[in-house]
This record gives sequence, C-alpha cells and structure tokens, in this order.
Amino acid sequence: MHDIEHLKPFGKPKFIDRGITKAVELLQEWDGGPVSGIGLIGMPLSKTSISHSGASAAPEVIRKMMNSFTTYSIERDVDLQFAPITDFGDITPHVTDLKETQARLEQVMEEVLKKNPGMTPIILGGDHSISASSIAAFCNVHGPVGIIQFDAHHDLRNLEDGGPSNGTPFRNLLERKKINGDHLIQIGLRDFSNGKTYRDYAKEQGITVYPMSEVNARGILGILEESIQQLQSQVSAVYVSVDMDVLDQAFAPGCPAIGPGGMNSDTLIAAIQFLSSHRAVRGMDIVEIDPAIDFRDMTSRLASYLILQFLLFRTSKP
Amino acid sequence: MHDIEHLKPFGKPKFIDRGITKAVELLQEWDGGPVSGIGLIGMPLSKTSISHSGASAAPEVIRKMMNSFTTYSIERDVDLQFAPITDFGDITPHVTDLKETQARLEQVMEEVLKKNPGMTPIILGGDHSISASSIAAFCNVHGPVGIIQFDAHHDLRNLEDGGPSNGTPFRNLLERKKINGDHLIQIGLRDFSNGKTYRDYAKEQGITVYPMSEVNARGILGILEESIQQLQSQVSAVYVSVDMDVLDQAFAPGCPAIGPGGMNSDTLIAAIQFLSSHRAVRGMDIVEIDPAIDFRDMTSRLASYLILQFLLFRTSKP
Amino acid sequence: MHDIEHLKPFGKPKFIDRGITKAVELLQEWDGGPVSGIGLIGMPLSKTSISHSGASAAPEVIRKMMNSFTTYSIERDVDLQFAPITDFGDITPHVTDLKETQARLEQVMEEVLKKNPGMTPIILGGDHSISASSIAAFCNVHGPVGIIQFDAHHDLRNLEDGGPSNGTPFRNLLERKKINGDHLIQIGLRDFSNGKTYRDYAKEQGITVYPMSEVNARGILGILEESIQQLQSQVSAVYVSVDMDVLDQAFAPGCPAIGPGGMNSDTLIAAIQFLSSHRAVRGMDIVEIDPAIDFRDMTSRLASYLILQFLLFRTSKP
Amino acid sequence: MHDIEHLKPFGKPKFIDRGITKAVELLQEWDGGPVSGIGLIGMPLSKTSISHSGASAAPEVIRKMMNSFTTYSIERDVDLQFAPITDFGDITPHVTDLKETQARLEQVMEEVLKKNPGMTPIILGGDHSISASSIAAFCNVHGPVGIIQFDAHHDLRNLEDGGPSNGTPFRNLLERKKINGDHLIQIGLRDFSNGKTYRDYAKEQGITVYPMSEVNARGILGILEESIQQLQSQVSAVYVSVDMDVLDQAFAPGCPAIGPGGMNSDTLIAAIQFLSSHRAVRGMDIVEIDPAIDFRDMTSRLASYLILQFLLFRTSKP
Amino acid sequence: MHDIEHLKPFGKPKFIDRGITKAVELLQEWDGGPVSGIGLIGMPLSKTSISHSGASAAPEVIRKMMNSFTTYSIERDVDLQFAPITDFGDITPHVTDLKETQARLEQVMEEVLKKNPGMTPIILGGDHSISASSIAAFCNVHGPVGIIQFDAHHDLRNLEDGGPSNGTPFRNLLERKKINGDHLIQIGLRDFSNGKTYRDYAKEQGITVYPMSEVNARGILGILEESIQQLQSQVSAVYVSVDMDVLDQAFAPGCPAIGPGGMNSDTLIAAIQFLSSHRAVRGMDIVEIDPAIDFRDMTSRLASYLILQFLLFRTSKP
Amino acid sequence: MHDIEHLKPFGKPKFIDRGITKAVELLQEWDGGPVSGIGLIGMPLSKTSISHSGASAAPEVIRKMMNSFTTYSIERDVDLQFAPITDFGDITPHVTDLKETQARLEQVMEEVLKKNPGMTPIILGGDHSISASSIAAFCNVHGPVGIIQFDAHHDLRNLEDGGPSNGTPFRNLLERKKINGDHLIQIGLRDFSNGKTYRDYAKEQGITVYPMSEVNARGILGILEESIQQLQSQVSAVYVSVDMDVLDQAFAPGCPAIGPGGMNSDTLIAAIQFLSSHRAVRGMDIVEIDPAIDFRDMTSRLASYLILQFLLFRTSKP
Repeated sequence: MHDIEHLKPFGKPKFIDRGITKAVELLQEWDGGPVSGIGLIGMPLSKTSISHSGASAAPEVIRKMMNSFTTYSIERDVDLQFAPITDFGDITPHVTDLKETQARLEQVMEEVLKKNPGMTPIILGGDHSISASSIAAFCNVHGPVGIIQFDAHHDLRNLEDGGPSNGTPFRNLLERKKINGDHLIQIGLRDFSNGKTYRDYAKEQGITVYPMSEVNARGILGILEESIQQLQSQVSAVYVSVDMDVLDQAFAPGCPAIGPGGMNSDTLIAAIQFLSSHRAVRGMDIVEIDPAIDFRDMTSRLASYLILQFLLFRTSKP
Repeated sequence: MHDIEHLKPFGKPKFIDRGITKAVELLQEWDGGPVSGIGLIGMPLSKTSISHSGASAAPEVIRKMMNSFTTYSIERDVDLQFAPITDFGDITPHVTDLKETQARLEQVMEEVLKKNPGMTPIILGGDHSISASSIAAFCNVHGPVGIIQFDAHHDLRNLEDGGPSNGTPFRNLLERKKINGDHLIQIGLRDFSNGKTYRDYAKEQGITVYPMSEVNARGILGILEESIQQLQSQVSAVYVSVDMDVLDQAFAPGCPAIGPGGMNSDTLIAAIQFLSSHRAVRGMDIVEIDPAIDFRDMTSRLASYLILQFLLFRTSKP
Repeated sequence: MHDIEHLKPFGKPKFIDRGITKAVELLQEWDGGPVSGIGLIGMPLSKTSISHSGASAAPEVIRKMMNSFTTYSIERDVDLQFAPITDFGDITPHVTDLKETQARLEQVMEEVLKKNPGMTPIILGGDHSISASSIAAFCNVHGPVGIIQFDAHHDLRNLEDGGPSNGTPFRNLLERKKINGDHLIQIGLRDFSNGKTYRDYAKEQGITVYPMSEVNARGILGILEESIQQLQSQVSAVYVSVDMDVLDQAFAPGCPAIGPGGMNSDTLIAAIQFLSSHRAVRGMDIVEIDPAIDFRDMTSRLASYLILQFLLFRTSKP
Repeated sequence: MHDIEHLKPFGKPKFIDRGITKAVELLQEWDGGPVSGIGLIGMPLSKTSISHSGASAAPEVIRKMMNSFTTYSIERDVDLQFAPITDFGDITPHVTDLKETQARLEQVMEEVLKKNPGMTPIILGGDHSISASSIAAFCNVHGPVGIIQFDAHHDLRNLEDGGPSNGTPFRNLLERKKINGDHLIQIGLRDFSNGKTYRDYAKEQGITVYPMSEVNARGILGILEESIQQLQSQVSAVYVSVDMDVLDQAFAPGCPAIGPGGMNSDTLIAAIQFLSSHRAVRGMDIVEIDPAIDFRDMTSRLASYLILQFLLFRTSKP
Repeated sequence: MHDIEHLKPFGKPKFIDRGITKAVELLQEWDGGPVSGIGLIGMPLSKTSISHSGASAAPEVIRKMMNSFTTYSIERDVDLQFAPITDFGDITPHVTDLKETQARLEQVMEEVLKKNPGMTPIILGGDHSISASSIAAFCNVHGPVGIIQFDAHHDLRNLEDGGPSNGTPFRNLLERKKINGDHLIQIGLRDFSNGKTYRDYAKEQGITVYPMSEVNARGILGILEESIQQLQSQVSAVYVSVDMDVLDQAFAPGCPAIGPGGMNSDTLIAAIQFLSSHRAVRGMDIVEIDPAIDFRDMTSRLASYLILQFLLFRTSKP
Repeated sequence: MHDIEHLKPFGKPKFIDRGITKAVELLQEWDGGPVSGIGLIGMPLSKTSISHSGASAAPEVIRKMMNSFTTYSIERDVDLQFAPITDFGDITPHVTDLKETQARLEQVMEEVLKKNPGMTPIILGGDHSISASSIAAFCNVHGPVGIIQFDAHHDLRNLEDGGPSNGTPFRNLLERKKINGDHLIQIGLRDFSNGKTYRDYAKEQGITVYPMSEVNARGILGILEESIQQLQSQVSAVYVSVDMDVLDQAFAPGCPAIGPGGMNSDTLIAAIQFLSSHRAVRGMDIVEIDPAIDFRDMTSRLASYLILQFLLFRTSKP
C-alpha cells in the first residue's frame, strides 16, 4: 500500500523477531474452497446458560491468546508453521431468538462439514449448549458418532424446565436420537455437581461415566485407551467435547461453574494429546470459558494451548 | 424460635443501633392482598441485550444496597419508616425462551397492577427491553400513558434485525400501538450514541427529544415542567423510565453502555424528586445496571437512593 | 401468599430444575428444638486478627456458595437431600468490645451444645481466634477433647503482646487448661511461617507436629490414622480445626496469610473425608477465609465443599 | 556509606530531577524536640468501625501518595520546600483491646500537643472514632474547642449499643463534656445517611447542621465564614474534622460508606483552603479512607492534596 | 469468499442493525494515496515515561472504543458516516532503543505530512514524549507552529537528568528551536504537579500559562478565544496537544499521573469542539492514557469521543 | 529520639510479637564494608521487555513480601535470625537510555562483586535482560561461569531485531563470549514458547536443554545432580537464573508470559534448596515478576520464599 518504513496498519504486530512465528499466524481465513486439516469455528452463544455467562466472548479471546504462543513444539522438535488452521470465523447469533441461533449453529456447521468432509473441526463455544448443535451437525454428516466428554457435569438435564440450555446438550442429542447412550463417555464428573436423577438417567441410557475418583485412581490414559476401544468398533467417528470446568478451579479460574476436586491441567493436556493422535477422533469442541471472569485469560490461554497440542499430535508422529 | 441471646438466624443484621432504621426494612414482602403506596417488582432479564449484559442481577443488588441507607431524610426531616414499600419479588425468566419471558413480564405485571390499581410500581430491570413489557401492562391497566424517558439512546431500533432487544422497547410499544409518539418524551440523548435513522423515526412519530445540550442549557426542572404539562392534558398517567446510562460514565460506572458527555447524578436526583411529587406520575422503572461491571455497586447504590427519593417526595409535602 | 405464576419473593431461586437439589436447601434454620446430625454455626469475628482481615464475612459467603453445589455425590451415589444441616445462624459480635464478643462465642456455643448434645457442630469463622471460644465450649460440654489442627502456623503465640488474637487460640486453650498439649496435633506447618519460640513451646507442651514435609513424605492418611489412634484412647471427642491457610496459595487464594509450599486441596478433601467417617470426630471449624480478597470465592467454595464431604462421609457408608 | 555511583539503598527514589521536589520530602521524622508548624500523626485504628473497614492502612497510603505531588503551588507561585511537615509517626494500636488503643490515641496525642503547643496537628485516621480521642486530647491542651465537621453523617450514635465506634465520636465527646453542642458545626449531611433520633439529639444539643442542600444553595464559603464567626468568639481554637465520605461517591470511591448526593472535591478543597488561612484553626483530621477498596488510591491522593493545600494556605499569604 | 449465511470472518461484527453505523467504520486504512480530511496515526511509545506506563497500548484501545459510538451527532443532526478518517496505522517502536523510536516517530510523521499536506492529523500516544517528535515533524512541514497544550504539567523538565522523557517534550522542542515560547500556551496546570524551576523557565521563555484557577474563573472558551487570537497572527498553524491528565481523576481514571483539582470532561469536550472549528488548528495529539490501569476504558472512551467531536466540528457548520 | 510510648516512626511495624522475627529484619543495608554471606541487589529494569512489563517494581515488592515470612524454618528447626542478608539496594536505571542502564547494571554489579568476592549475590530483576549484565559482571570477577537457567524460554533471540531485550540475555552473553554454550543448562522449556531457530542455535552452541517433559519424567533432582556434575569440572562457579515463568500459570500468575504446562512451585522450591546447598553455586537471580498484574503478590511472595530457602540451605546442614 505504501512504502513508509516503520509504519504499519493497525492490528499488525509492532515487533517481529525473525526467529519466532506466532501461533496466531497459523489461522488462515477460510477462502470458501475445500479444506482438509484442522478448521476452527466459533459458536459465540451463551445466552442459553442457566447462570449468567459471558462465554460468547471466548472464541475471540481464545484466538487472541494464540498470540501468546509460538508454532514450535520443543518436546517434539516440530514447527507447526506449515500446518495451518483454517479459520471459518464465527457463526452469528440472533440477538433475542435463541432457538434461531441454535438452528443456525447446526445448519452452518453442517454446511461447513459437507463442504469439507476431510476437515477436523475444532469448535469454540460458547456455553455447552452449542455441543448439541455442533454434534447434531456432525452426526448428520459423519453418521453414528461416539463422544468423549470431559466435564464436571452430566449435562443431561431435562429440556422441559428451561429449554435447550447449557445443562442439556447430551440429553438433547439423545432425545433427538442423534446419539446413542452407549456411544457417550463422560469423564471427570464431580461430587455435588450433578443431580441423582440425571445419574440414574445416564445409567438407563447406557452412558459410560468415569468420575474424578477413577481418573485419579486409574490415570487418564488408561481410561482413554478403554474409551477409544469401546467406541471405535461401534461408530464411524469420535467427537471430543471439552467443558473446561472439568478442571479444578485452580487451573481454570474462568469457567462459570468453577469448583474444587477437579482435574489438573497437565492431565487434560495429556488427554488431548492422546486423543488427537487417534484417527478416529474427528472433531472437538471447547466450551464454558467466560473471559470476563477469568484471571489474566488463563483459561482461554489453556484452550489455545490445547488446540496447538491437538494440531501437534494430529500432524506429527512421535 | 429460641431464646439464646446473641444468636441470630443467618441473614439478619448482626448489629442493631436503636436510633437507626435501615432502608432495607422498608421492603415488606407482598402478602397477596391489595396494596396502595409504592410497590417494587424485579424484572431480571438481560439476555435480550445487544451486547453482553448482567443487568439481570440488578434487582438483587439494588435491594441489597438499601442496606446502605437509612429511612431518614435530613433535608426534609422526614422518617420514612412508616411508609413501607411492598416488595412483590421478581418475575421469573425462562432460561432459553426470551419471548416467553417477555410475555411473563407483561402478564404478571398486568395481574399485579389489576390487583393493586392504586399502587405505584417501581420496576427494577434488567435491561431496557423490560420497559416494553412493563409499559404495555401499564397501558393495559391504566389506559393511555405518557412516558418520560431518561436515556442516552432513543431505544427506537427496528425489531426486524434483532427482535425485541434492549434497543427497541419504545419502537416496540409504538408498533404495538400501546403508546403514541406524542406521549413519549426522551431526555438526555447524547452525541454518537444513536443512529440518524432512528432520530428521523422519532421526528416522524412526534416524539419529543431533549438532548444533553438542552438539559445543560435550560436546566432539568424547566424541561420537566414543560414535559409534565404537555403530557398531563393528554394521558391518564405518566410512567418514568430511567435508563441509568443517561448519566455520565463518572457517575454511573456500572452501565453496559457508559460514555462521556452525560448527566451528573445530582441532576437525575432532582428530576426524580420533581417527578415523584407529581401525582400524574404513576410508575417508574430503573434499568441497565450490570452489577458485575460496576465499581463498588455505585450505580445500584444510586438506584436505591432514587427509589428512596421517589418515596420521600411522593410521601411528604415540602 | 399469592397465586400469580412466575412471580417469586426476592431471594428465592429464579430457575428450578426438577432433577437438581441445591446444597443450600440442606440448610434448615434451627427451630429451637433438639438436633442431632450436623449443625452449622457462624462466628463472624475477625477484628481479633493481627493483620487486617475481613474473615467475619466468611459465614455468609460460605453459605452462599452452597448454591454452587448440589446434594448428590456421584462418587458414592448418595443424595444428601434427606440429611439436612441445621443452621443455628451466627453469633452476633460486639462492635468494639472484642472480649465481650469472645465471651459470647463461648457462651452461646456452650448453650447450643448443651441443648443438642448429639449434634456435630461445624463452626464457620471468622479468624482462628474463634477456635479458642469454640473449643472451650466444646470441652465444657464434652470433657477432654483432642484436636486435629490443619494450619501453616502453630497459633501458639503469647497472649501478653496482643491479647487473644488469631495467633493465639491454642496457647489460650492450653493456658486456660481447657486442653492438654498431648491432645493437640498440628498438621501442615510450614517453613518461615512460625517463630522458633513457639516451636519450642509446642515441644514443651507435648504437642504433636507434622510439618508439610511429613505430609508430603508419608501421605495425609497415614498421619491421620496415627493421629486418631493417638487421641482416641485419651479423649472423649475429637475436634477438627481447619485453618484454610494450610493450603498452598494456588488453592486458597482468599486466606489473609497465603503462601507457597502448602497443601493442595485434594489432600485436604481426603483428610476431611477420612476424619468425618470417624465417630470420634465430634466437631469441626473452618477459619481464616477473607472473602474480600479471594478470587471468585474459590476459598469459600472449597469450604462449602468440605462441609458437604464431611456430611457425606458422616452420613453414608462406603 | 559507599561510593558506588548508581547504587541506592532500597526505598530511595530511583530517579531525581533537579527541578522537582517531591512533596514526600516535606515529611521530616520528629526528633523529639519542640515543633511549630504542621505536624502529621497517624492513628491507624479501624477495628472500631461498625462495618468492615481497612481505614487503618490510610496513614501509610496517604503518606505514600505524597510521592505523587511536588512542593510547588503554581496557583500561588509558592514552593513549600522550606515549609517542612514534622512526621510524628503513628500511634500503635493494641491488637485486640480497642479501648486500650483509644486510650493510647488520646494520651499520646496529649503528650505530643503538650510538648509542641504551637504546632498544628494533622491527624490521619483510621475511622472516625479516632476523632473522639484526638479532639479530647486537643481540648485537654487547648481548652474549649470549636469543631467544623465535614461528614455525610452526624456521628452522634448512642454509645450503649456498640461502644465507642466510628458512629459515635461526637456523642462521645459531648457525653464526656469535652465539647459543647454549640461549638460543633456539621457540614454536608445527606439524606438517608442518618437516623431521626440523632438529628433530634443534635437539635437538643444545639449543634449547627448544614446539610448538602444548604451547601449547594449557599456555597461552602458563605457557610464557613458564618461558622468561623460563630465559633471564634466562643472558643480558643477550632478543629476541623474531615470525614471523606462527605464527598460524592464519584470523587471519593475509597470510603467505606460511599453514596450519591455528596460534595464534589473542588468544594472540599476550597473549604480546606479557606479554613487553613484562619489562625483560629489549630488542627485537622482526615478519616474514613479504606485504601483496600479505593480505586487507584484516588481518595488517599485527595487527602494528600488537602494536606498540601492546608500547608500552602497556612504558610503563604495570597 | 463463501456463501454460507450467518458465518462471518473473525473480527467482523456479529450483529448489524441497519439503522446504526458504528464510528469504528469511519476508520479507513490508508491506501498510500494523498489524503485530506482527518488522519489518525498511532505512536505507541511509553517506555520513555518517568514512571511505569502502559500508554503504548492506548492507540489500540482508543480505536477499539470507536465501537462504542455511532457516527451520528444528535446535537447537530449530522451523520459523519461520509466523513471518513484515514487510519495511517501505528509507527512501530524499537524494542530497546528509545531514541531510535523517537527518530522514527518524527521521520514517519514528516513523511506522512509531506505526502498529505492538506490532512489534519490526530496523533494517538503513547506518553507525552511523542509530542516532541510529532510537533517537530509538524514544524518541519508547516513552518512556525503555535501550540495549545492541555495538561496538569509544564512538561518542560531538563533533558540532562533523564533524557527525552514524557516530562520534557516542550523543553525539547524549545531547545531544538522547533518552537518558540511565545507560541506555546499551556492550559489547566495544577498545584503540586510541577516544579518552581520549570515555572520560572516558562516565564523566561514567554510561555503563556493558564492554571486551573483561571479556567474555573474565566471559563475555557474565553481563554481559548484569547489563545487563538494570540497565536493566529504569529504562526501558520496551531497544534493542540491533549494530555488527558489535565482532567480531574474522577473523569480520567486511566492516566498514569491522576490527581484531584483538575478539569471536568465537559470542559475539555467544549474546548475541543471550539478548537476544531477553527481552521488555524491543523493537528492534535491525545496522550497519557494507560489502558491497563483505567476503569472500563473510560479514559480511552473519552478520547474516542473527543476525536469524533473534533471531526464533527471540523466537518459541519453549526 | 523521643520517649513517648506507643508512638513509632512511620514505616516501623505497628505490632511486635516477642516470639516472632520477621524475615524482612534479615535485610541489613550495606555499610560499604566487605561482606560475605548473601547479598541482595535490585535491578529494576523492564523497559527492555518485548511486551509491556512492570517487572521493574519487583525488587520493591519481593522485599516487602519478606514481611509475610518469619526467620524460622520448622522443617530444619533453624532460625535464620543470625544469618543476615546484606541489602545493597537497587541499581538506578536511566529513564530513557536503556543501554546506559544496562551498562550501569554490569558496572555496579562488578564493583560490588570485586569489593565482596566471598559474597553470594541474589539479584532481583527486572526482566530477564538483566541477567546479561549480571552474569557478565559475574564472569568478569569469577572467571568461567556455569549457568543453570529455569525458564519456559531459551532467551536466545537474535540481538539485531530488537536489541538486548528480555528475549536475548544468553545469546548476548554467548556472542560477547562471556559464557560458553557448554556451560549453559536450560531447564523447564515448554512447547509453543520458543522458536525452532533458537532451538537449533542452542544445539549448535552445545547448550544443554531439559524441557518440561524431562523434568516430569526424571524428576528435578536427578537433572540437577547431572547438571552440577557436568558444570563443576569445567567452571569455577555456577550461577542460577530463575525466570519465574518456568512455573505453570496456576503457581506464578504474575509473570508477563504466563502459560500452562509449566512446573509447579514445590518442584522449583526443591530445586533451589538443592542448588543452594552446593558450594559451586555462587549467585542467583530471580526475574520476570510484574507485580502490577499478579494476584495478591503470589509470585513475589514465592520469590521471597525462594530467597529464604536459599539462605536456609546455604547456611544450615541438614
């Protein structure tokens, strides 16, 4: 545009070090053409939350946190700078019609997946209600889907009392027969974070549940091996749903429903690394981060890091 | 219940000074019987906001701030302790169906007003969308209503783009023919806070607009005299709608849409005192306070103070 | 009171899910009659702290945090909803006479215990000075008491320099001969958090001390087994005193005296579970949380969780 | 000590501009010898507050804020660098015996005043209870004293309910017959901040009260002219007591009892300038700043500024 | 790029109301061609500050705050949407060589001005040191320049002690003979914010100084009339330098050097409106906002508003 | 100075417990004479940081945090009160000339070391750029030096792009041939925190790198044994450089470059204990704490604790 040295358009980095590539540069705006590899798509909806939530801001902040990371994994000696992430942008919500928003999420997601069948989507919530839309679209395109859900909560509440909220996504999918209880694995559930009614419902539906005590006793990798094995034979694809409140409050201070007794971040990182390296895993969402109540964007920062680890283990061989 | 001295149920004040009555004690839970005087009713809805808003928490915090005040006006030497406020509680929102919530607001408000025709309601938002429900109910019960709106914004946005949001309440009422443009007076509008399209719409509808420059030039009381006179002959009742963002950001740091160039708090206090003393004024709402982003509950504190001044000037003669 | 649907008194939950019982509903205000089971009693005193402390607000916030939890333990598949906690309320402090307040704490506590000899009290401080009053009352009613104290500090300071402050409760009890050094077990003490003088005093008094290195080396359960065994034979009842600053600052950011090198929250949770299941344990206090300096009420949230775990392990058999 | 350039002891300024003298350099530690001019003395007591208060930290922060100012008045073209302030330090409180602390405040203050009869003390609270001690000492040394109190509140509460708290200082002085109601002038009292009982007591005692409406209507200087004239003939000395909560919450966000409808800071500055230039004024206190809840030390910053204006108008002729 | 409805690239607005144009849309990235009208240019330098400052982030936040405003002035009934602002972007600083950065600021600014002689630049600091570079470039291109500086401080400190810092810009320009003391007018200086040495230097240099007392006594418009008249005859262009700390701390909480006794925001707004309408005014800078210490971006918000008022009064006739 | 009881100079502790010695009392201002033992020296420079950093305030806050600790180690039963730390104060930075500041750091450090050859310095940054100056001085005095660096980052960036910033200290030392790649051991490096270019450079230079996975797999003590052994034979002294961002964000919330996947604080404490007890270790720095963005000074608090553990293990035998 112009030839004046040291004058850069607003928004461009003010300092560039020739030896550093920022992870944010991995994000390449979708050009409408077919994409394989990993695609990022934001679902900025949190008005569906039972409690006050600003999780709709998370897609923006998680992307921004990509500025805090480089593209280089020192553990694997791999530079991801040639493994771009296609950024599909965000699905726009309706201001007051939340069902319309949920319909948009499902419909746009389905269109995106149909145009890009080989692409592995990473969906940024939003609250956990978005998983109902995202997974429904996923099933529509990929057929029977297995789900590995990291969460302190069942998210199996009835839909009568409050509609399709952030407490209901998996109930929603079960009732719509999009998924099957046998194909749903819930990991990290905690004491005093659920209702017995819904625990019973989970049993009836054949949902597999690993509460925190099992994670601590058996180790996350053993559980995941078992889970992948269980799902692999039955479904065509596995979808990973990461509610960040599966983490202990010390490690994810920015979730609306924080609490003690949760997972530490190293365990979750190891889990994502493991899952990413399995080809059966075909999509992931990360939900329930409210940047407005976080401390120094720690929780969004961790979400960015999980995306990078996912990309790393998907891309490289150990 | 028990006779153990120095042991009090949770929630009761831990220290009582015999010479002080806290304003919070004025609030008396509605017993279902007919009420005259002032009634408080909460409308904790803010999912209808265009931007992220936690204004649904304001009814709780405004009531809590009543603990910061006593019942005694030193300026008028009047103690309000025998002028109770009936607290009707809050209208419960639906978690995900915002239109259902708005229908509830209107319907419950109408029921309450019908059971208590002589009562002067003070409605606590919530965002400004609640005024559409509240005023519609008010009109249903009281007939043609004049409105004096304190606001930085017209709140006359079209309903097509985002539905009945916090940008649309008065457009909503006009389109539903609940109110008439001639009966709407908007005070305190500011530069760069509105769209020309909506200013033009206001003109077409015959809405009276006093932007901040007129408030500064003429004084608020002159404007209000004129306004009351204009409305008095045409309508059976006047409703005052107070969007706290009419205030300058220095005085109302807790509004979602803060900005410079606004009213100072003394002017708004004087306005409410003036209006309360007019019998034509039959209701008031206070909206757009998000306690989560306020500083030391300053904005809710001011809202509580406005309620007390309203009660004072309604109750006592100078 | 009234029959208007969707209108609820202020303070009532705005959304109820039929499958969820909130832990806060376990709290039932004491009706003055005899109680067994668990009783909650607040001691909102922190003016006795050596440094500035707002721990007097903790009883209110810990109760409020009960809203963040349900009544259901997924680990044990137990729903506590039929195991209520009797809430005795708070003991009211004197504004300026701190000794009078301490006398009230002891006296009211004693009355409550005498009227409810089978009840297991959980006392919410306040700063740690309240343990002197609480335990004294406990001893008056239950006879010789053993104490298991979780703390970074001895709390054995002399009473001459600053009076009965939050640094002195156990010295206070020893000097008053309410307890015996042999019956006091201190767990989790940390480097650079104590004076050598008081370590020496602890030795002279026969107090058992397990500093953090031992907790890390031996594990908390081994230490507790040993402790219970040691006490069981000598005393009629064991009282657990939990100063939350025993935790590392990453897990209890809301304690006035935070620091590194402390316990993690899982260890403390396990300890409370273990102790609760022992019938010898007849009371517990939780102290030194200042909600005004906490982050997102994390420390109060953990306190609520500890109460629920206590209730769970007391109520249910594994 | 050493001759290494660019190495300075901890606590010394890291940058010195030859043309700037920081106001903090005006503070000179008392050497025990007789002092005229202005003396600063801290009374870090706030455990006597009815509500939670950290005002005990204010003497430290107000002094620190002296670093934000220079010694030069551009309005008067006067450099105060040769008008030092003697810093007597702080009176040490007892940790748990608040009456003992109050006795120390009075006794030390009296000793200081007796040793320095020509000195004008500026006392830094602490909460407003310290004025009872400070003024009592002042009266003991200087005889009948007139008081000009800036405050939103009477501070005339009864002493029975909560003892000598921050709600009682002037009642305390009246009951002890240290001062006379005729000699007490209260300026800036606000609606809904007082009890009628105490307003009536003020009348009985002959206290002069100028609520905010009079300040707004007449102007502060007219009121002060009148006040000084009223006092001058009757007392030997005037003491100014500045409760910072006389200010509107927008200007003094760090007071425990903030509220709307108060004075702006320019008015208070003008008041202090006026009073300082009157020789009858022989002392001043500044109370009720809690640095822990302030925003960017704004309220302490203003307190420092008031001290400098006091020094300026005392020292220089216009 | 693609045809999927409801899917938008990251960074685009998620909701568009057909009747509202956001002020941020006025910013159009410079295409390298010649520009008249108003140009925005960021100078993100604050490492030159004497105290810790994050003012380098202000250009980003001030632009972002343009999202909080629309393009429509209700006071003048003017829509600015066809009066775009050319955004030249930011001049990139060197990480460690601050003189190099300052050289870049001057050089790039000069190049921009030479290519766009008819353009009126608005420069966004950074700290006040950037005015030295900006004005030097301005003088190089436009010849003798008059300066109207809004500031609590002289900013005439010597350059020997700390180099070309934020305390020195006008001394710097005087010593480099870029400007003449007669052509410098300083408005809003405050007590205890300057050194006598520098006041004396100002006198020697013939600088015109209006401290706050004169602003309060005479009104800002009278002073500005006088100032413009004084400069108009002597210089070819007037440059306005706005240090936001000229404002009282209640109105500009985000300046590093906040204090009481300053200007209110309405006065500054009126000043900018007045100056903008004078053709002699050919440039403006806004400096000393540190977004990291601001409250809710109030100070940056006000800066955005000043830019819009500048544009309004420059563009439209009353 | 004076004999008034209960009156203490400003800055002195207001309460003294006879059985407690605060760690801050260990700090004794340097008298210019020769010192052995441990010396503290502040290098308050952070303008050299690539991103905005207020780490220049850390030396002050770390010292202040010494008030939070006592002198007594309960783990070792050692009271450090007779093992003072000599406080050399801070090296004063230049306001705008950062190279001049860096020259001062090196020069003053060298002078201090030459005058005190037996002293073990603990240097408080500042950002990590200060290690270049500190270690250069160290080498000048002590000859070939081995370095054990705890860091998430290599800090081996090129010096061309941004000069001697906080990303370059070890590159700087290597290029200046002050140190040798073989003598540099980097521990705790993390994924996505470095550039591949610099990892390659590290290899070329023979730098030993232990990324986080090795710390987790092998344990810190094994790595340190190996490291000390490797260095011991080759160099005359070992210098430990602690960039606090080696820690996970949950344990060091106050570092500018926080992130997940890092070390926990217990590991770092154990490392410092181990290293301190080795006589080869002759110096340590602690860098990259920005108190302005920390939570409750947690990170500075941990730094103080590390200093005390260093002193403890240096002083006492197990």
